[in-house]
Amino acid sequence: MSHCIATYRIHDDRADFHKKAESIAVGMTVGSWTELPQAKREAMKKHLGEVYAVEVHESADGTEGSRYADVRIAYPDVNFSRDIPALLVTVFGKISMDGRIKLISLDLSDNFLSSFPGPKFGIDGIRQLLGVYDRPLLMSIFKSVIGLNAAELREQFIRQARGGVDLVKDDEILFENDLTPIETRVRLCMDAARDVEEETGKRLLYAANLTGRTSGLKEQALRAIDAGANALLFNVLSYGYDVLQELSSDPDLTVPLMAHPALAGALYPSPHYGIAAPVLLGQLMRVAGADLVLFPSPYGSVTMPREENLSIRDQLHTTSLGMKRSMPVPSAGIHPGLVPKILRDFGTDVVVNAGGGIHGHPMGTEAGGQAFVQAIDAAVNGISLTEQAASHPALKAALDIWGGE
Amino acid sequence: MSHCIATYRIHDDRADFHKKAESIAVGMTVGSWTELPQAKREAMKKHLGEVYAVEVHESADGTEGSRYADVRIAYPDVNFSRDIPALLVTVFGKISMDGRIKLISLDLSDNFLSSFPGPKFGIDGIRQLLGVYDRPLLMSIFKSVIGLNAAELREQFIRQARGGVDLVKDDEILFENDLTPIETRVRLCMDAARDVEEETGKRLLYAANLTGRTSGLKEQALRAIDAGANALLFNVLSYGYDVLQELSSDPDLTVPLMAHPALAGALYPSPHYGIAAPVLLGQLMRVAGADLVLFPSPYGSVTMPREENLSIRDQLHTTSLGMKRSMPVPSAGIHPGLVPKILRDFGTDVVVNAGGGIHGHPMGTEAGGQAFVQAIDAAVNGISLTEQAASHPALKAALDIWGGE
Repeated sequence: MSHCIATYRIHDDRADFHKKAESIAVGMTVGSWTELPQAKREAMKKHLGEVYAVEVHESADGTEGSRYADVRIAYPDVNFSRDIPALLVTVFGKISMDGRIKLISLDLSDNFLSSFPGPKFGIDGIRQLLGVYDRPLLMSIFKSVIGLNAAELREQFIRQARGGVDLVKDDEILFENDLTPIETRVRLCMDAARDVEEETGKRLLYAANLTGRTSGLKEQALRAIDAGANALLFNVLSYGYDVLQELSSDPDLTVPLMAHPALAGALYPSPHYGIAAPVLLGQLMRVAGADLVLFPSPYGSVTMPREENLSIRDQLHTTSLGMKRSMPVPSAGIHPGLVPKILRDFGTDVVVNAGGGIHGHPMGTEAGGQAFVQAIDAAVNGISLTEQAASHPALKAALDIWGGE
Repeated sequence: MSHCIATYRIHDDRADFHKKAESIAVGMTVGSWTELPQAKREAMKKHLGEVYAVEVHESADGTEGSRYADVRIAYPDVNFSRDIPALLVTVFGKISMDGRIKLISLDLSDNFLSSFPGPKFGIDGIRQLLGVYDRPLLMSIFKSVIGLNAAELREQFIRQARGGVDLVKDDEILFENDLTPIETRVRLCMDAARDVEEETGKRLLYAANLTGRTSGLKEQALRAIDAGANALLFNVLSYGYDVLQELSSDPDLTVPLMAHPALAGALYPSPHYGIAAPVLLGQLMRVAGADLVLFPSPYGSVTMPREENLSIRDQLHTTSLGMKRSMPVPSAGIHPGLVPKILRDFGTDVVVNAGGGIHGHPMGTEAGGQAFVQAIDAAVNGISLTEQAASHPALKAALDIWGGE
């Protein structure tokens, strides 16, 4: 029988975790079991949740609040439809409100996953679009764009593009506005991208922020694509995974989708509640079809523990899912000195993504991009940043203010 | 200048909360301020967030983790579009991932709210549909319905209806399935409702669970309404508030919408992270157009502190929002003995909602409903339950096993 397995971490100083596990397995599926007559049980058996494992971690020193169990429950696929809302309501709907319980992992069945096409481009598709195969990609983030007019936006785009970045993304808080509505933004940025490409020969993806009412998203995406957009940014958690899936699986939407983690901090950081980051920002983003996924890096001010980051990476990279791989984009606090570390943590299939680390460069935004290009070049060729910096002033200036290997 | 104000509770043992507040006000709006030239500041001033208040709560005894501040930031309405995703990304997008920060309240401007029609029916509209004006409503929840066939479903519906309930709702984990797809469910339940109405003269709303892919929801709702549905249940948080708003504001959807809180426990219970229950299950549900809103009661096993419950109630009841009021449905652990307490806490504009408290009645489901009817009748007439129970065996049996006043 095909099923999806949810693993919960339940904190409780006194609970009988085995009994608790049974009550979840029954309560979240058939509702009651022991009181059912035998004939009824036969018919209901295929719907009954099953306790797969209960791993109790007793508090070593009896500290209040430190006793917990990891409980694995198998939910028969026959109970729910093939969409992420149904999955989440089944495995974490009512039970999310029942004490200190956190959803820490999901094992999705092949049967369930077969309804999810996944990312349309994935890592390989994005590399093909850019013609870059052998190194991490470099992305720059528009900064302080609220209130900018078209000319100011073009100027900032060009400064970023000339630095040698592969991707530029909108700020996620830039919504439709009179000065730079999405078609205007796309046209002027893609024009600027072509101008810079003529100078440098470098292709560039610009991810415009898709916003507004749910039913208008597709039409807005099509208008952006008509205007020349070659990527789109999307605040997935403010809409729901299913909306991302509808966009990603729409044959008319012919560009990569970049998932922004806005609001994710409301869900993953508590040890007691919520949904763990590898599920929230790794697995479900990929299953819903994100080609690139941003998440808080373990390096900067907005941080996430390194193991959680690597676990997100694994969810985006694993070949076991039967769908294209998504590009991890660890974000926040990234400066050129971190590039060797990012490569060690993520391999080359990663986007090095910087805002302040590019715009805040002492020699300006263009040099900010160049410093990263130089750092990436050094790192993939096994040259130390210090050595590379000796002949590359932009990198040297970055290392001088931000440090690095 | 029109703006929306977000209040955050930030836990930090050492932070300079005033500086932190400034960094949020600037960082979540214009991005930078002190480094802007004067001329640029003039143009950007209307986009700049503003610190309204910083109320620091120093730890009385220096206990680690107990120092916090409530920080109020005003976000100019001009910065974001008139939809809930834009609002949430603006006030709690990136900042949700920056340490121990919880969104505890939102003051929405009249300007912002003017784009939200709110509930189509609201408390008064639901009362009109039922013809019940002077007492709390009574709702019963289908139990253990996964795997039931149409005949079994009808039988359970009739037992609930005969008990005298005003509303019956689907289980939120009942998705589209071969045995009882939504049209079949609606037809058989509404047939059963008419049969019972002929006996009792009592009208009844049945909320069928709207599920599946986002783009199919409207069509599914229309099919359900065509089949006779007079209410719909919706797992809002698994889809996003905007999807609820699109459904609630659609003129073709001519029935009340009932919001289920599935997944809410991933967001509200932590003192350090997430979105407070009154915002999550009160204000935003109503703004998005829910006519009835379920949330964990303060009485049962799945509990929420009483003050949070009353604050949800206030968000649903307040006349200051300029839109119809939503019906609060405190749920879980409700039995007839709690009815006087529910009335004291919520007034008469509340739905008394029971699952186990009806189906688990020692004399059966029908008596389970009757016991609640008797309890409500007593409570609104100022008769004690004990006195009422003396001449009402169903209520007496309920009080004997579950207790009560």
